Amino acid sequence: MAERGWGWARAVRGLLLDVSGVLYDSGADGGVPIAGSAEAVRRIKASGLKLQLCTNETQATREHFVRKLRAMGFDVSVAEVTAPAPAACRLLRERGLRPHLLVHDDLVPEFAEIDKTNPNCVVLGDAAENFTYANLNEAFQLLIGMEKPVLISLGKGRYYKETDGLKLDVGAYMKALEYACDVQAEVVGKPAKRFFESALAELGVPAEQAIMIGDDIVSDVGGAQQCGMRALQVRTGKYRPSDEHHPEVKPDAYVNNLAEAVDIILQQL
Amino acid sequence: MAERGWGWARAVRGLLLDVSGVLYDSGADGGVPIAGSAEAVRRIKASGLKLQLCTNETQATREHFVRKLRAMGFDVSVAEVTAPAPAACRLLRERGLRPHLLVHDDLVPEFAEIDKTNPNCVVLGDAAENFTYANLNEAFQLLIGMEKPVLISLGKGRYYKETDGLKLDVGAYMKALEYACDVQAEVVGKPAKRFFESALAELGVPAEQAIMIGDDIVSDVGGAQQCGMRALQVRTGKYRPSDEHHPEVKPDAYVNNLAEAVDIILQQL
Repeated sequence: MAERGWGWARAVRGLLLDVSGVLYDSGADGGVPIAGSAEAVRRIKASGLKLQLCTNETQATREHFVRKLRAMGFDVSVAEVTAPAPAACRLLRERGLRPHLLVHDDLVPEFAEIDKTNPNCVVLGDAAENFTYANLNEAFQLLIGMEKPVLISLGKGRYYKETDGLKLDVGAYMKALEYACDVQAEVVGKPAKRFFESALAELGVPAEQAIMIGDDIVSDVGGAQQCGMRALQVRTGKYRPSDEHHPEVKPDAYVNNLAEAVDIILQQL
Repeated sequence: MAERGWGWARAVRGLLLDVSGVLYDSGADGGVPIAGSAEAVRRIKASGLKLQLCTNETQATREHFVRKLRAMGFDVSVAEVTAPAPAACRLLRERGLRPHLLVHDDLVPEFAEIDKTNPNCVVLGDAAENFTYANLNEAFQLLIGMEKPVLISLGKGRYYKETDGLKLDVGAYMKALEYACDVQAEVVGKPAKRFFESALAELGVPAEQAIMIGDDIVSDVGGAQQCGMRALQVRTGKYRPSDEHHPEVKPDAYVNNLAEAVDIILQQL
């Protein structure tokens, strides 16, 4: 990416960063950092720019997630993470909903304070190995038995990249249940506008002074742009060359990785 | 269902019958026959009407399936069964496709003669317990790695009824893979027109002289009507009262069960 045409970046005061595929590649082994990303996070903080991680990660609590990132060398805190589970808890409380959870075991503690007796909705996360036929059927039977089924999905990603290859994400299972029950899920997480607005509120910067950096052309780039942000796609993580011909979404710029994005942005300031 | 308004049934020369939900309710215990259905099959045959079973059953070979039906008292033979797997084998041969199978273990023998080395498509059936996260990921990774992914789905049912409740059908998993890979599956089985045409050819009766009897408002009734057949919905199996307000499909008549359908049809002859 040439540095020409980045004049708009001069107004930037804060960055929203996707995590998996931008900071690190996840995997059964815990994942591996993407070269230059830990240093890039340090440089963002040293520059005075604000930083918030905006992730659809639902395989662990934020506490656990941040511990893992810190062990990989990332200088981040729990308060710097905007994630779907806490946003879903707010929504459940507001509407008096009692969820049946089909989520990863390690995410369950995020819902510790929520009444889960006699469920009147289903909350779907990236349950990974918990996506058995028996578990998906249980969620299906609950939904199809409701007069007006309520399905809340923590993200709608198609797939993500782990160290040993691409993996199905929660969106695929959301579509399965939507079809089986003839309902439309409510998405909490990227690319939902309300979720980006929460992340911006936590960042403390208005949309027009924020840049989203992510590897997902639809959830990260498209979602952020619809909220009035600029958005960059990194060529790491789940990025595929065909993304550059996406019929609907065009990033404000492509960068090879987070380190390059930070280089160029800091040069504009 | 009153017997008035059935004048059109006088032209009938053959019946296509759905199986699960019409002849019997399936289940882990092998399933239970629906009252009066075995006798109804005998009466159809005694009347001289032709009969063909037109099923999306993909949890067993036709041989195994017919053995089970005969054990429940149904006088049917393998030649009287039109099922998706043999139709899929014809399609695979015609197009030189080598499938990766994500199907029920008991269906695998139907594909014994098909070259499955170095797969260039995925065939999806009602795999039930085989729908693990690992297996769905394997199918997904194969598809996403193809230049032009080919997904063949043996039916697209949303769910079916077993003796212990409603169960997710292959269509839900088809939607999951369609979304994850951004492809459209080719459906072999009801409601595909080509599949009904095969069943009519095997029945040996033109569409306008055939009646389809099924419990699925979309796959059975809608599919058959689009081929120019009359179609009845039984109030057994997965039938739900809300089907009677379906926005797109209206059966030629409702009947409480197969026995009642046969009673009324035979009275017209």
